[in-house]
This record gives sequence, C-alpha cells and structure tokens, in this order.
Amino acid sequence: MIKQLMDKIEKTKAPICVGLDPMLSYIPEHVLKQSYEQFGESLEGAAEAVWQFNKEIIDCTWDLIPAVKPQIAMYEQFGIEGLSVYKKTVDYCHEKGLIVIGDAKRGDIGSTSAAYAAGHIGNVTVGGKRFAGFNTDFLTVNPYLGTDGVKPFVEVCNAEDKGLFVLVKTSNPSSGEFQDRLIDGRPLYEWVAEKVVEWGKDSMDGTYSNVGAVVGATYPEMSRILRKQMPHTYFLVPGYGAQGGTAEDLKYCFNEDGFGAIVNSSRGIIAAYKKEAYGKFGPEHFGEASRQAVIDMVEDINCVL
Amino acid sequence: MIKQLMDKIEKTKAPICVGLDPMLSYIPEHVLKQSYEQFGESLEGAAEAVWQFNKEIIDCTWDLIPAVKPQIAMYEQFGIEGLSVYKKTVDYCHEKGLIVIGDAKRGDIGSTSAAYAAGHIGNVTVGGKRFAGFNTDFLTVNPYLGTDGVKPFVEVCNAEDKGLFVLVKTSNPSSGEFQDRLIDGRPLYEWVAEKVVEWGKDSMDGTYSNVGAVVGATYPEMSRILRKQMPHTYFLVPGYGAQGGTAEDLKYCFNEDGFGAIVNSSRGIIAAYKKEAYGKFGPEHFGEASRQAVIDMVEDINCVL
Repeated sequence: MIKQLMDKIEKTKAPICVGLDPMLSYIPEHVLKQSYEQFGESLEGAAEAVWQFNKEIIDCTWDLIPAVKPQIAMYEQFGIEGLSVYKKTVDYCHEKGLIVIGDAKRGDIGSTSAAYAAGHIGNVTVGGKRFAGFNTDFLTVNPYLGTDGVKPFVEVCNAEDKGLFVLVKTSNPSSGEFQDRLIDGRPLYEWVAEKVVEWGKDSMDGTYSNVGAVVGATYPEMSRILRKQMPHTYFLVPGYGAQGGTAEDLKYCFNEDGFGAIVNSSRGIIAAYKKEAYGKFGPEHFGEASRQAVIDMVEDINCVL
Repeated sequence: MIKQLMDKIEKTKAPICVGLDPMLSYIPEHVLKQSYEQFGESLEGAAEAVWQFNKEIIDCTWDLIPAVKPQIAMYEQFGIEGLSVYKKTVDYCHEKGLIVIGDAKRGDIGSTSAAYAAGHIGNVTVGGKRFAGFNTDFLTVNPYLGTDGVKPFVEVCNAEDKGLFVLVKTSNPSSGEFQDRLIDGRPLYEWVAEKVVEWGKDSMDGTYSNVGAVVGATYPEMSRILRKQMPHTYFLVPGYGAQGGTAEDLKYCFNEDGFGAIVNSSRGIIAAYKKEAYGKFGPEHFGEASRQAVIDMVEDINCVL
C-alpha cells in the first residue's frame, strides 16, 4: 500500500493529503441552507451539508493530489448520520482514484484492536461471507497500550496490503507532556518510534514499510532525529498551515530520495475561501479556492525539497 | 454523574458493569440463524444478531447491575449497521435505567477531541438545535496527546454532568511497554495518574470526580499505589475473569469507604453459557446463564470488600 501511495505522490508531484475534516463553521451558508431546507436542522441536514461540501472539494482537487485524510471525529460528532457520510466520502474518494487515510487514532487491547482493524482496513466475516465496514487504505493508530494493542492492525495490513500511521510525536501544543518525557535519557516518542520500526519490519513494501508514523510538522528538531532513527518508515505529517508548521519546518521529515513524508492540511485547504488570500473566490466558489490552496501548498513544499 | 453511578452501585450492591462486547463467536447458533434468515449473511444480519443477543442479556441482568460498558469496536467492525446497534443498545440500556459507559478510548488534538466529546457524551449544534449523537454517560479516553487532547472531554463532562475514565494503567499483557517505563524514578502511568487528578479537580461530584481512570485488574500492586495516589478518582477496572484478574487482585482498587471502583466483565458474563460452570443453561438460555454469572461475580467481589 505504501508503494501505491508513493507512486501517486510521484505522479502528482504532491507529497500532500487533504484533510477532509468538515466543521459546520467551514461550510458556506448556501450549502447549509440548501441541506437544511431539504432535511431540516437535524443530524441528517448536517450530514448532507458535510457530504455536499466534501464532494465539491474532492471534485475540485482529486486530480492534483494522491490522497485524502478524513478525520472520523468530524463525522462521528453527528452520530450514525455523520458516519454514513464518512463512508460515502471514503467510497467517493476511491471512485476518484484517491488513497484514503482514515484518521481514527484507534487502539485498545488485542481482541478489541482486531475488531477495529477488521472494521476500518480489513474485513469482518459474517457466516460464509466477508464485508468491509469502512474500507480505508490507511488508518492512524494510538500506541499507548503497547505491542499487543498494535499487532492486530499490523496483521490486517499484511493480509490485505493496507497501511498504518502510528502516533509517535503529535503536532498539538501539549504533545510533549508525556511524549517528550525522558526515559533512560531518551524521550518517550523515540522509544515509541523504535517500536514502530520493529512492528513494521515484516511489512516492507518496496523501500518503505506499510507501518508508518505520525510526526507533527510543529516540532522540526524532533522530526530531524526521528527521520534518521526510522529511515524506512513513512511519516504522516499533520500541523502544516493552520497549526503553525511551515514548509521550512517540513524538510527534515523527508529522506534524500525525496520521499518519506506526506503532509496533511485540513483547514488551510477546505476552508481556504475564508482566508484573505483566497477571498476573491467567495463562498460560492469554495471548491476552486481549495484547488488554488492545494496548488499553492504543493509549490510551497516542493520549494524546500 | 459519578454520584449517580455510586447511588446505583449502592442500591444494587454490585460494583460491576457488564461489558457488552458481542463477538459473533459468542452469539448462540439459534440467534445467528434467525437473524441470517431474516437479513441474510450480511452486515445487517450480523448487526441484528448482536442486537438480539444484547437485548436478551440486558433483559436478564438489568435489575442486578448499575451499569453496562459497550465496547464500540465490537460494533464498529460491522460498519454503519453495527454502530446503529451500538446506539440502539445505549438507548435501550437507558430505558432500563442503566448507566452506560461508552468504551471508545478516543483522544486527539483539541478541536478533534471536542468533536468526539460532542458526539459521545455531549451535543452537537445544528442551526438552532442541539442533538446527541450517541448519548453515553461516561466515555473512556486515551491520554497520549496530553492535556489539550483531554480537556475538551472534561469541558463537556462539566457542562453536561457526564463522566470520563482516562486510560492510566491498562489490563493487557504489553501495557507495561510504555506505561511502566520510569521517568524521573516513577512509571509513566503514575505521571498520567497525576494529570488525571489535575484534569478532574474541577469536576467533583460528591466525594469523587467525574474524571475517572482505567486501572487494570491484572496488576494489583500497581492499583494499590494508584489508589493511594488518586483517592478521589473512580477506577474503571477491566481484566477481571477472562483476562486473568481475580477478586483478590481487585481489593486494592477500592477505597475504605467501599467505593472507588467499578469492575467490568465482558466475556465472563455475556458468553457465560459457554463455560462449564454454566453449561446447564445451554445456548437456548444464554441470558439466564449471564444472570447467574452476574450474581456469582457480585458475590465473588463482595467477599473481598
């Protein structure tokens, strides 16, 4: 799976993914109005607005990008109706040939992680048949429970040629509270990184492993160290743009082969029309604003590579 | 919310919750057969079987217990159909007067945790109206991202009188891989415990905080230390029974007031009919086997208190 992602990155020359994390506050008034008129101010109405918003952004950007990263929480907040749109979004992205990174940060004890893995990147067996619940290509995973909480995800990756990104060093302000604490002279995130390498050593797909790592753009010195510590591990890099990470901060996430990282931007792309730089598009043309923001982001990142 | 839970524990004299974690392999053949006949070997068929299984267990145990703990992964594996049954189960448990602990182990950066909190224990605003996506009373939360990933959950707790159980020391075999590593002479889980106390200090509801902790039954020496370190924090204790924790192991999780812990059992209750001790009930009477297993578990635990 990581090879497929790299092929698409090479083809698009865009080492980025668009974070499909729709907050209602990002959705233009005319989209909300139309959905509420049809389905009322209800969970259905909100879900329909999210779907129409996503569809327009996908339609305006799919040919420029290798992948999308829907954040499932933004759908889960609307209950079943929201999660139905998560699935619809995943399916639609696949129709468009996009790779889908499900950002769910799941993780639990072994048997429970196995159920999450089956539902998100694998299949569940019902009687004599197999079904994919959500069918994403990659999934983000939380490592706090250790090896037996992560292994079931790795096993599904290996069986189904899917991929993972395990949280190592996250982009948020308080990520250091536990992740940076020193254990035998090295921060926790380096110990987690060491395990991620170990978990992924039997999942090589070309020069990289299908077991990747989440490494935030907001801590460039740490990504420099992690890049050296895990040369065959792909990084999913959140934190560019709205969270404060710059292109300059990102360069350490990449290897000398020009690969090794895929940078996510959510708000900066999907709510681009709200920014002064893209104000000329107006809310009516929010999809075109997103397209221009993708073009600008790719150029910005390619400048430092 | 923790006060409501304690009142129910006092009334039932049962400091336990039933883990509604239905695997298809736990569900008796006759239930599966009937569901598959109606909905086919499909996600709908599996979901219906899970629902019928849950309903029978709830009907047979609700009057003996204060709470249930559905593990959302076991529903999520069946996609939208499974999650619809998760919601249906939560709603049915509420009709029966049970407190529902959603075991979802969510956690992310701030804005994303806020969305999870809204969906699971709070409300989401759509236009001028508010809706609860899943409406559980408690939610389990993963602390790996630190304070800004947990605070949004605490804020919803405080606003809506709901509760949390934050992972501190989990029950699985490899939980020590990161959680037990020493930082300035103390294991990581103690540092997490310290933060849990801090996060919960403005959420007092009687003598305990609405911000609780997950502390596995399988590591009694550690629960003894944690019990002292966090006297006003309620413990959700997994690992009793099938995972190897005994009643003797549990006693340190409780305070001298007889409160302070709620012990979960999943497989040991919901799949009791498969165990030799309850074999006499047979698969046809799996609900009654679960009822007897609840009675036996409560007696077992009350012996050591």
